[in-house]
Amino acid sequence: MGNIFGRLEGSEPSAGVVLTGSHCDAIPLAGMYDGTLGVIGAIEALAALQQAGFKPVRPIEVMMFTSEEPTRFALSCSGSRAMAGALTPAELEAKTDAGGLHFLQASGAGYAGAPPASVANQVGYGAASTGEMLEAVRVAPEAVAYFVELHIEQGPFLEREGTDIGVVTAIAAPAALEVHFTGDGGHAGGQLMPIRNDAGLAGAELALAVERHVLGTGSGDTVGTTGTFEVSPGAINSVPREARLAIDIRDTDGPRRDSVVEGVLASAADIAHRRKVRVASRIINQDPPATCHASIVEAVAASAKQLGLSTKHMVSRAYHDSLFMARVAPTGMIFIPCRNGWSHRPDEFSSPEDIANGVNVLALTLAHLSGGSWPKVEL
Amino acid sequence: MGNIFGRLEGSEPSAGVVLTGSHCDAIPLAGMYDGTLGVIGAIEALAALQQAGFKPVRPIEVMMFTSEEPTRFALSCSGSRAMAGALTPAELEAKTDAGGLHFLQASGAGYAGAPPASVANQVGYGAASTGEMLEAVRVAPEAVAYFVELHIEQGPFLEREGTDIGVVTAIAAPAALEVHFTGDGGHAGGQLMPIRNDAGLAGAELALAVERHVLGTGSGDTVGTTGTFEVSPGAINSVPREARLAIDIRDTDGPRRDSVVEGVLASAADIAHRRKVRVASRIINQDPPATCHASIVEAVAASAKQLGLSTKHMVSRAYHDSLFMARVAPTGMIFIPCRNGWSHRPDEFSSPEDIANGVNVLALTLAHLSGGSWPKVEL
Repeated sequence: MGNIFGRLEGSEPSAGVVLTGSHCDAIPLAGMYDGTLGVIGAIEALAALQQAGFKPVRPIEVMMFTSEEPTRFALSCSGSRAMAGALTPAELEAKTDAGGLHFLQASGAGYAGAPPASVANQVGYGAASTGEMLEAVRVAPEAVAYFVELHIEQGPFLEREGTDIGVVTAIAAPAALEVHFTGDGGHAGGQLMPIRNDAGLAGAELALAVERHVLGTGSGDTVGTTGTFEVSPGAINSVPREARLAIDIRDTDGPRRDSVVEGVLASAADIAHRRKVRVASRIINQDPPATCHASIVEAVAASAKQLGLSTKHMVSRAYHDSLFMARVAPTGMIFIPCRNGWSHRPDEFSSPEDIANGVNVLALTLAHLSGGSWPKVEL
Repeated sequence: MGNIFGRLEGSEPSAGVVLTGSHCDAIPLAGMYDGTLGVIGAIEALAALQQAGFKPVRPIEVMMFTSEEPTRFALSCSGSRAMAGALTPAELEAKTDAGGLHFLQASGAGYAGAPPASVANQVGYGAASTGEMLEAVRVAPEAVAYFVELHIEQGPFLEREGTDIGVVTAIAAPAALEVHFTGDGGHAGGQLMPIRNDAGLAGAELALAVERHVLGTGSGDTVGTTGTFEVSPGAINSVPREARLAIDIRDTDGPRRDSVVEGVLASAADIAHRRKVRVASRIINQDPPATCHASIVEAVAASAKQLGLSTKHMVSRAYHDSLFMARVAPTGMIFIPCRNGWSHRPDEFSSPEDIANGVNVLALTLAHLSGGSWPKVEL
């Protein structure tokens, strides 16, 4: 569920590796820094260490994860989920894209090496069972000593405060819901107001209820978004018969996030009852938060300090492959500023200076974590 | 802007005609009765009169109007608007479809006969100016003595009350608005709530404000619908940057309808201000209501009574080509029940019995209005 681009061999080749990387896939109309920075930046960091003559004890490796964004199969972090053993065969076998193509058909070769036998015949391309394939990509115990991910902040704080480097201490817990309202529709002129059951208005109420539940926690760490809102038939002179909403809810605090999820589901049921529409709600995923490992937090802060860069300890509200890697290895993240906190839009931007800072901090952090020795002249 | 299918010649061929008809175009996922009933029903009515040996004084003609639904060019009743002189060259020249194709390019030949010279070169297909073409399809003074349209009710009252025939006394005034909110978008995890300006939530508030303004009139005759609601980029993990709403508002009372339009536009501006999003609002059309002509209302009621059918005098909340024909000729409408009041959906349905009743009432009404004589044996 990921490709290893580069390896800086250690003096103890069989020791658990120090792994670094991110993803290169993107949502529609995205920018070019989210994820990609952490892959290309990792390759650069290894090149810099090698060029400087650094000799690690633990090997250092670069990883690119597949399908971090949930765009095609409504499943985020497919690669790192699988590596962490957080993806069941049943979940994977249920995934199809908008065109009905099965996840396993679309992924084709490249999972678990050569396609082996049995259940995979069902999806028509090989031989291994889904379970066997997922087992084969799981990170073996002790195989990864540390995982570090370099990423743009995707929020405004570093830039606003003029801070060079974000030292991530935790990753917020994400959840995703899908809610589908169905009413009777009808003609926008002929259907009088008292007998309508407008699915679009049910959806509008729910989108606002998501915001209300989130603000109701009183915590600045809770966020909730109705990112997709589709009404059908979608004609100006027709009362909407259907509304489909996809809702994203995140928090640094798992139970608080869960209370918002429950509140939104209760609102969906209540709105459906009041507006006499049918409702089908579904939790797509609801993952626990992750805490970054103290040894990596310290290594990142120390590396930044060594380079004369300012730091801020912070929570990642966006989630990343690190959320799942944290389940199988001590994990940490390095953030750099991005313009206006913008991400997931074409004008996403981080300056070459900030990128260089991030790559340098990553290189030093990897060196710290791997153990090893520098040549006489410092980096 | 319409095709004449049939003409039953009168004893005074140069007298103003009694015109009847409707449209055959439909919205996506529509049923097959809206409009089409009034075209095929009109042909059947003329055939019945002819078969019965009825000899009219005024000629009776069948008309099929083009593009009654606003589906492709966001302009309802294109044909009858033009026939009534309610469409300016500038309005028509500004119309393009979603693919950017011009109304006049798409319509091609068939408007105002052979394409003549001058400004039409601009749209690349002929010779007449748009103004000359529109002038050529206008109904000449006195050319239409009466216009009668047979239609399904598109509402639930006739079926619910077990009434056979709706005698339409007025047609509600329609208006259509387009509202476009634009915010900054951002990542659904990284963008904290206080700094968001979510265009989707602005849209959700406005859809609910439309309902509130409509219910606020206290009149059962006012209706308002947000039939299209599109958010962009439309990804679960992105805050919506854009929301586009198309809003339909109708009332039997023009000034009351106008007050709702004003209220909705004011709400759009207020929501944009509060949510710090940009807004662009546009009135697509805002037409006055139409009153049905007393002589047709009486003729329809008398015809139904003659056939032993029950009647209800009622307002048409849906609008029709009759709305525009009423500007150039005495106009009236005949409604028949449709199942559950459903229209603009695939399961739209009227029974063969109700259709036969409607066609018979239409035939007798046309006979009344045309003047003329029956053979010795009654119809």
